[in-house]
Amino acid sequence: MASTGQVIRCKAAVAWEAGKPLVIEEVEVAPPQAMEVRLKILFTSLCHTDVYFWEAKGQTPLFPRIFGHEAGGIVESVGEGVTDLKPGDHVLPVFTGECKECRHCKSEESNMCDLLRINTDRGVMLNDGKSRFSIRGQPIYHFVGTSTFSEYTVVHVGCVAKINPAAPLDKVCVLSCGISTGLGATLNVAKPKKGSSVAIFGLGAVGLAAAEGARIAGASRIIGVDLNSNRFDEAKKFGVTEFVNPKDHNKPVQEVIAEMTNGGVDRSVECTGSINAMISAFECVHDGWGVAVLVGVPNKDDSFKTHPMNVLNERTLKGTFFGNYKPRSDLPSVVEKYMNKELELEKFITHEVPFSEINKAFEYMLSGAGLRCIIRMGA
Amino acid sequence: MASTGQVIRCKAAVAWEAGKPLVIEEVEVAPPQAMEVRLKILFTSLCHTDVYFWEAKGQTPLFPRIFGHEAGGIVESVGEGVTDLKPGDHVLPVFTGECKECRHCKSEESNMCDLLRINTDRGVMLNDGKSRFSIRGQPIYHFVGTSTFSEYTVVHVGCVAKINPAAPLDKVCVLSCGISTGLGATLNVAKPKKGSSVAIFGLGAVGLAAAEGARIAGASRIIGVDLNSNRFDEAKKFGVTEFVNPKDHNKPVQEVIAEMTNGGVDRSVECTGSINAMISAFECVHDGWGVAVLVGVPNKDDSFKTHPMNVLNERTLKGTFFGNYKPRSDLPSVVEKYMNKELELEKFITHEVPFSEINKAFEYMLSGAGLRCIIRMGA
Repeated sequence: MASTGQVIRCKAAVAWEAGKPLVIEEVEVAPPQAMEVRLKILFTSLCHTDVYFWEAKGQTPLFPRIFGHEAGGIVESVGEGVTDLKPGDHVLPVFTGECKECRHCKSEESNMCDLLRINTDRGVMLNDGKSRFSIRGQPIYHFVGTSTFSEYTVVHVGCVAKINPAAPLDKVCVLSCGISTGLGATLNVAKPKKGSSVAIFGLGAVGLAAAEGARIAGASRIIGVDLNSNRFDEAKKFGVTEFVNPKDHNKPVQEVIAEMTNGGVDRSVECTGSINAMISAFECVHDGWGVAVLVGVPNKDDSFKTHPMNVLNERTLKGTFFGNYKPRSDLPSVVEKYMNKELELEKFITHEVPFSEINKAFEYMLSGAGLRCIIRMGA
Repeated sequence: MASTGQVIRCKAAVAWEAGKPLVIEEVEVAPPQAMEVRLKILFTSLCHTDVYFWEAKGQTPLFPRIFGHEAGGIVESVGEGVTDLKPGDHVLPVFTGECKECRHCKSEESNMCDLLRINTDRGVMLNDGKSRFSIRGQPIYHFVGTSTFSEYTVVHVGCVAKINPAAPLDKVCVLSCGISTGLGATLNVAKPKKGSSVAIFGLGAVGLAAAEGARIAGASRIIGVDLNSNRFDEAKKFGVTEFVNPKDHNKPVQEVIAEMTNGGVDRSVECTGSINAMISAFECVHDGWGVAVLVGVPNKDDSFKTHPMNVLNERTLKGTFFGNYKPRSDLPSVVEKYMNKELELEKFITHEVPFSEINKAFEYMLSGAGLRCIIRMGA
């Protein structure tokens, strides 16, 4: 492409103000600097985190901003020092990164890179502390280093996973965030054994991906827990075998689950962010061997409280971030799980809109309709 | 021996009342019933748990009772159905058991046997709900199924570990409880890697055994935390390399440790039972990979509280009971660790008294003097 080193003009959906519909604008996208790559985004999808920061109810607002962090695209050009990506590579940009140099990246156990760990407050690139987006000279802020609601975006090379070019980007783009988060929480952290029982708290996209992980791992009982009983029918497609709505019981849901399972489930995965669900998820696992995994992001003032005997009785509590996947090292193999039909992604994709109708995707999410809405760029 | 099937008359130290000195009495020890064995105890040692239930400040008192649960002895006779022990076998009786039949025993992850899990409220044998001890017809209660403060005792076969007959019982008897608890917490649960950092909360016998485990595992930094600075010198023998007394700092000890270790230790093991120490032990491990293991037994009304982000940031909280050792399957190999000089036990043994002076052992423990006092039976 002739655009290398040049500014690209393209369409982007700009959030000018908190909670106001995005506006499709012509933006200028600067060329990638050292250790950066410029991507052509082909498909992006909408995740709760975009909506949460767009609403900006809990955090310092940072506008105007280009949201978007679940996406699939193609490398357009690379900046200085980038050696493992080249124009034309098929990639997934990721909201958290892997520098491959820090203690976390060198640890087998962590994926919380010191350099590129998610930062929702930063709206600029690391290299020069500036944005690569502008409209008539006015900088537009980045979001979690990805800003995929733009036909072109600039991303740090550590936040780009190179994947099999045969993988359909309109499907595997959902692996950029939520689906990998839930799937990895089960496969990499909870690690249920074949024939075991697993409780999943929250049957949104992340929870259903956790259920999908339990199905892939061969769990024989997958108990879905959600306050919305309408979610139960769809959850069956993801391997959920039983349902519990805490509202239907006059005792704590952990006691209901313990009664259903002769003392507790083998594993639980919490995907709501509600502190009560976190506590229930921990207390519903069996003593001796139960493992509870927290995925959902809590509120600032929450406190996780439990009687220490629940821990002493050989229960394990673990937290995970992005399903413990290291973006560059591990995501390619998740894409392969889809390619070899072990992992089903189609059932997560319930809507699709052209880029020009991106605000519809926000409406679907705000009304709780469906799981993932794919946004086709250039349309 | 000619005593098989007969009542044995021997000496036992009987606790007639809570907190009152034990009295050496002549007791009658009934023969073992189905799945029971009668042991001749040669050495026993005193553990905090004996003192705790002897003081009976927190629980329903059960007296008269024969305490004692850390011991080494020889099988005198076996009851019906006992096939894997025979008279003359060298054994360690254990306060918790392994039936080899229940879900816990069949699980690779648990040692909390459904049938023989520690029960401090029960003062009788499982088979008939009666005691095997009596004085002139008055039953004397058992303690945690072991009651080793007696020259002979009756124990469920599931609570007896058969060990190498070459092992000196006056040393390996301490493996019956506290030392294995601390050692296993580190080796089996925390599992520090070679060269890693480990914080140990509480430098009593259990904590020092946890430190010994860290030393054996090759940890390069072992940080001891205790409110009593006098314990620090002795702790060096157990591999402790650095000391923190929380009283010397005007900030939470977890922050002190995080500053000493560039963000937190790789592993921590809590051996005090103080709820504040439990919380500190969890919060002082590094995000991304830190594992905190709780060993100490909390109070009834304690609540473990932490911000859920401390979990989400990929920390792990685990509890353990008896160091996750299955008594019959695993204790023989711990004895072998001593026999091959990997594990040092002598340094845990700071006092020795004849059986007739057993109350001195209580005085040593109550005054905080030393670690383990060996009581020589038949003396």
